[in-house]
Amino acid sequence: MPLLTRITGPRDLDRLSLDELNLLAEEIRAFLVDAVSKTGGHLGPNLGVVELTIALHRVFESPRDKVLWDTGHQSYVHKLLTGRQDFSRLKMKGGLSGYPSQAESDHDVIENSHASTVLGWADGLAKANQIRKRDDHVVAVIGDGALTGGMAWEALNNIADAKDRPLVIVVNDNERSYAPTIGGLANHLATLRTTDGYERFLARGKDLLERTPVVGRPLYETLHGAKKGLKDFIAPQGMFEDLGLKYVGPIDGHDIEAMESALTRAKRFGGPVIVHVLTEKGRGYQPALQDEADRFHGIGPIHPDTGLPVKASGADWTSVFGDEMVALGKEREDIVAITAAMLQPVGLKKFADAYPDRIYDVGIAEQHGAVSAAGLATGGVHPVFAVYATFLNRAFDQVLMDVALHRCGVTFVLDRAGVTGTDGASHNGMWDMSILQVVPGLRLSAPRDADQVRAQLREAVEVEDAPTVVRFSKGAVGPAVAAVGRVGGMDVLREPGTDTPDVLLVSVGALAPMCLEIAALLDRQGITTTVVDPRWVKPVDEAMAPLAERHRVVVTVEDNSRVGGVGSTIAQALRDAGVDVPLRDFGIPPRFLDHASRAEVLTEIGLTAPDIARQVTGLVSKMDGRYGTTEGVDAVQPARD
Amino acid sequence: MPLLTRITGPRDLDRLSLDELNLLAEEIRAFLVDAVSKTGGHLGPNLGVVELTIALHRVFESPRDKVLWDTGHQSYVHKLLTGRQDFSRLKMKGGLSGYPSQAESDHDVIENSHASTVLGWADGLAKANQIRKRDDHVVAVIGDGALTGGMAWEALNNIADAKDRPLVIVVNDNERSYAPTIGGLANHLATLRTTDGYERFLARGKDLLERTPVVGRPLYETLHGAKKGLKDFIAPQGMFEDLGLKYVGPIDGHDIEAMESALTRAKRFGGPVIVHVLTEKGRGYQPALQDEADRFHGIGPIHPDTGLPVKASGADWTSVFGDEMVALGKEREDIVAITAAMLQPVGLKKFADAYPDRIYDVGIAEQHGAVSAAGLATGGVHPVFAVYATFLNRAFDQVLMDVALHRCGVTFVLDRAGVTGTDGASHNGMWDMSILQVVPGLRLSAPRDADQVRAQLREAVEVEDAPTVVRFSKGAVGPAVAAVGRVGGMDVLREPGTDTPDVLLVSVGALAPMCLEIAALLDRQGITTTVVDPRWVKPVDEAMAPLAERHRVVVTVEDNSRVGGVGSTIAQALRDAGVDVPLRDFGIPPRFLDHASRAEVLTEIGLTAPDIARQVTGLVSKMDGRYGTTEGVDAVQPARD
Repeated sequence: MPLLTRITGPRDLDRLSLDELNLLAEEIRAFLVDAVSKTGGHLGPNLGVVELTIALHRVFESPRDKVLWDTGHQSYVHKLLTGRQDFSRLKMKGGLSGYPSQAESDHDVIENSHASTVLGWADGLAKANQIRKRDDHVVAVIGDGALTGGMAWEALNNIADAKDRPLVIVVNDNERSYAPTIGGLANHLATLRTTDGYERFLARGKDLLERTPVVGRPLYETLHGAKKGLKDFIAPQGMFEDLGLKYVGPIDGHDIEAMESALTRAKRFGGPVIVHVLTEKGRGYQPALQDEADRFHGIGPIHPDTGLPVKASGADWTSVFGDEMVALGKEREDIVAITAAMLQPVGLKKFADAYPDRIYDVGIAEQHGAVSAAGLATGGVHPVFAVYATFLNRAFDQVLMDVALHRCGVTFVLDRAGVTGTDGASHNGMWDMSILQVVPGLRLSAPRDADQVRAQLREAVEVEDAPTVVRFSKGAVGPAVAAVGRVGGMDVLREPGTDTPDVLLVSVGALAPMCLEIAALLDRQGITTTVVDPRWVKPVDEAMAPLAERHRVVVTVEDNSRVGGVGSTIAQALRDAGVDVPLRDFGIPPRFLDHASRAEVLTEIGLTAPDIARQVTGLVSKMDGRYGTTEGVDAVQPARD
Repeated sequence: MPLLTRITGPRDLDRLSLDELNLLAEEIRAFLVDAVSKTGGHLGPNLGVVELTIALHRVFESPRDKVLWDTGHQSYVHKLLTGRQDFSRLKMKGGLSGYPSQAESDHDVIENSHASTVLGWADGLAKANQIRKRDDHVVAVIGDGALTGGMAWEALNNIADAKDRPLVIVVNDNERSYAPTIGGLANHLATLRTTDGYERFLARGKDLLERTPVVGRPLYETLHGAKKGLKDFIAPQGMFEDLGLKYVGPIDGHDIEAMESALTRAKRFGGPVIVHVLTEKGRGYQPALQDEADRFHGIGPIHPDTGLPVKASGADWTSVFGDEMVALGKEREDIVAITAAMLQPVGLKKFADAYPDRIYDVGIAEQHGAVSAAGLATGGVHPVFAVYATFLNRAFDQVLMDVALHRCGVTFVLDRAGVTGTDGASHNGMWDMSILQVVPGLRLSAPRDADQVRAQLREAVEVEDAPTVVRFSKGAVGPAVAAVGRVGGMDVLREPGTDTPDVLLVSVGALAPMCLEIAALLDRQGITTTVVDPRWVKPVDEAMAPLAERHRVVVTVEDNSRVGGVGSTIAQALRDAGVDVPLRDFGIPPRFLDHASRAEVLTEIGLTAPDIARQVTGLVSKMDGRYGTTEGVDAVQPARD
């Protein structure tokens, strides 16, 4: 990599010739395939933006100018050009983040990996520049998919409002059907577009090309229509034009010279401009280009030559859910499924193949997913909206005000709940069991194994007058954990072996094996423990308070923020029942978590069997020391009323 | 009201002539002015949709067809035509809701008064119709303002995706500048638009009218351009067309015949159609038409002839905030303000007048308000985003993932927090102090009086590395409540008068006078009480646990959902400090609240001084009875560690 290794910062690009820049692009591609095949990561998107990133850093002066990436998984090339070329521990503890990171570099701004935010950030930064009378530039890169999110619309509506506020929006359009021949025309069009010649050109260009039929989502139609010809000439970019946004494009996103030319014009324009760039996802890597299912968007370690995974993946939570949905779909014709642009990742592909009339991909639009689900339920069918736990945050108001207020039977299936680890702060699904607690009537379950995923999903879709939520972890599903008894609707996973047990250990979801391990560790200390899995953590089972009352201390363990989580809610239920048994709630501390493996994160935050067993032992010892064994049992329950 | 009183349901409209329908419209206007001037309510919007509502119910067969209202405050006429004509207790306990209500009528669907949701609901209902092979119609009425919300965009993108799924969208465009003369042309255009004649008409219509310059928001430009002439002929409704949506309009929204014609065509079309209707807000009522500030959007009781309020309003929380913002803006040039289409209601009008370059109205777009605030803060200014507490739910993900994750100094000011009452379930601001608890680093304050609003706002804008939130109630601000001491950062409002006090009463925000009353009532029972106002309720003050430990019981009182609220958070802080003093948390129960006055709601949910004092007395009595006074003090603190 003779060229790449010499790049220590963006300004090193200035002295390279066009040929050298193209060579550099090839070096970067080779580097990415080699590095990401070892570590895993987002390969396809980054292979698509190599030339675009080079052109951006040639034209703009980061970090003085702000180069912003939507859904920052397309920032690897940006990292390589801004002094970060050690990808050996990508997404691992202590290694590079898989997203931009302010801690890594002054060239990074947005760390949030949730989509469609970049235009809002850009609008804010551009407004600040205007107020502070700075002439910095702001350039935001957003994918065509992310434009389906409502935030993008809200931002465009605001950005277009100020004609004198400079802001460059690069629409990175990586539709696979991109035809490379269009680059020349696009460049020509773009030149005309921001010059006086455009109006004249418009007048005579009308019949030049014929309109190509387009399919797919309306937004895509609008965007992609732009590549096709006639439409551009008659009503070029009607939507953006109607909003009052200047449009440059479409540009061949693998032609560095063309992009530099377009970006330079956009930079000089002095107002908001959209630069429409056509890129090819997976560019230059045959396994990615040949893959229909877009598996190379994000990958685990692969063999670089074949693109095949290094290790075969076992059964995971997602596929258990996906298979059960196919079975449910067969049994009940009134069950429909919703995804927000993640059909494959949330496990609904099989359902979609089996029942193509009953699957809705709403785009990157969690709000619409939830509110349209309310409409579907009111219309007499039962929607199952499968979504990553962290992305449900986007639809909180709709879950509350549309689904719950109207008592709609909608099932939300939250994938990747709890600590997911390597994707960093914004991919952990650690808020759902807190914010959903406040939603009246909502029922929330956390299955502990594959059998429980199936069982609780079936229980969820039976509820027709309230929202239900089934949340589970990322990755491989653990071994089955058998119930040894039942108290109310709760599964007892371990009996204490005594009539006067010390600890009631409440296990939430996938942490059941850990909780059994805690109980075994406590057992060695002579502390007797009941382990119970509530299955449905909201509402708190009515059997919980009486059960808690028979113990000296209650311990809750959950894979969710401690704040307002299951532990807090059980504590409140106990208070309300006048059961003041001391409670200790273990969960994720109220801070953002750095990227690392799930196991490393759990260790770091003390959510491990030894850590928790040690703390519980300490607590019980103190209670014993203070009151003596017999008195203590009574003394810790002081205020039943 | 000879005609109106004979209307018991929509089908009674069928036998009326056009003249009678127009007479009916006049009767309805007179009724609305008379009724709403007595009770208060949304007058302007309903005066604007009288003919539209009549036409809708003539063409569609509610409740079989679903007639859906966005931001349901424009549903009064719909109520009058569907059997609800007793407006004497509008928005009062037991009277008609100010919004649609499923409990009131089968003709009502959406109860949620948050804007921009109707298209999502309509999409879901239309999908359900398709799946269940029903030929019902779905018609959604949305204001031009609500189209600025991202949810509307997400929905349009989905609706346009299915050309064979019938759905009628009525854009109720009530811009004041509407010129009535355009109605005939609009009707003509509409006729052409959904017939074969349109293409021919397009070819020759080009030079018919000249383009009128337009100003204002881009979306409005797009919509309102439609009324102006040439633009329609060259590229009619470019944006909607680009999305693949059929467009009918613009139609004079006070011409019943024209609307019936347009709606009938739209109903028969068999796919998604937009019907663009121009209405005049406040139509037929001079005080509303002459008012620039749109005060008649929602009103309290007024004199019907003059439009003047029956009683002068005193100082309210909003204006205290608004005045302080003007002072802050003068002192600090780096302070900017954001509103989501509610400049006047959130008190930012004076700031906008004083500093027109530092105010941003982002449209009905809370998500964009928050994410652009993150950009503004990162760009070096300090944004203050003033928003109703209930609407912040829309921006939860952005507060968490954009503002907090990036440690941005953004101040959120939550107006109308707590029980607001008469606007019903979706206007109460009862979730903010729960969901915001989970946001790492966020600081949350609840000022108890006007002085504290000013002081805490000033403290908030000093924080530059984390989001801050100041939340206060709706309406008149109460008398000043003086602090008699300070513990940590907390104000002591009442000393217990003993070294061994019974109760630590934690008072949150505007409930301070009630808490002092509770303490006085307890005093009569011989129960000694400390009353403390934490001022900043998040994070929990470090002095809280040591203070709690000196009491026998902790009682928290907050104007927020009990679930995950301030009480729960303090309980957790005490557990974490090993302070197991029993705690009882009083707040709003976890259910949706029916409309009634704030006082009535508080009484109904037991959030009154006598209720709380009675419960606390019972608790303390039981503790005394069980353990004896001296032992009890010890026994309730069993597990310090």
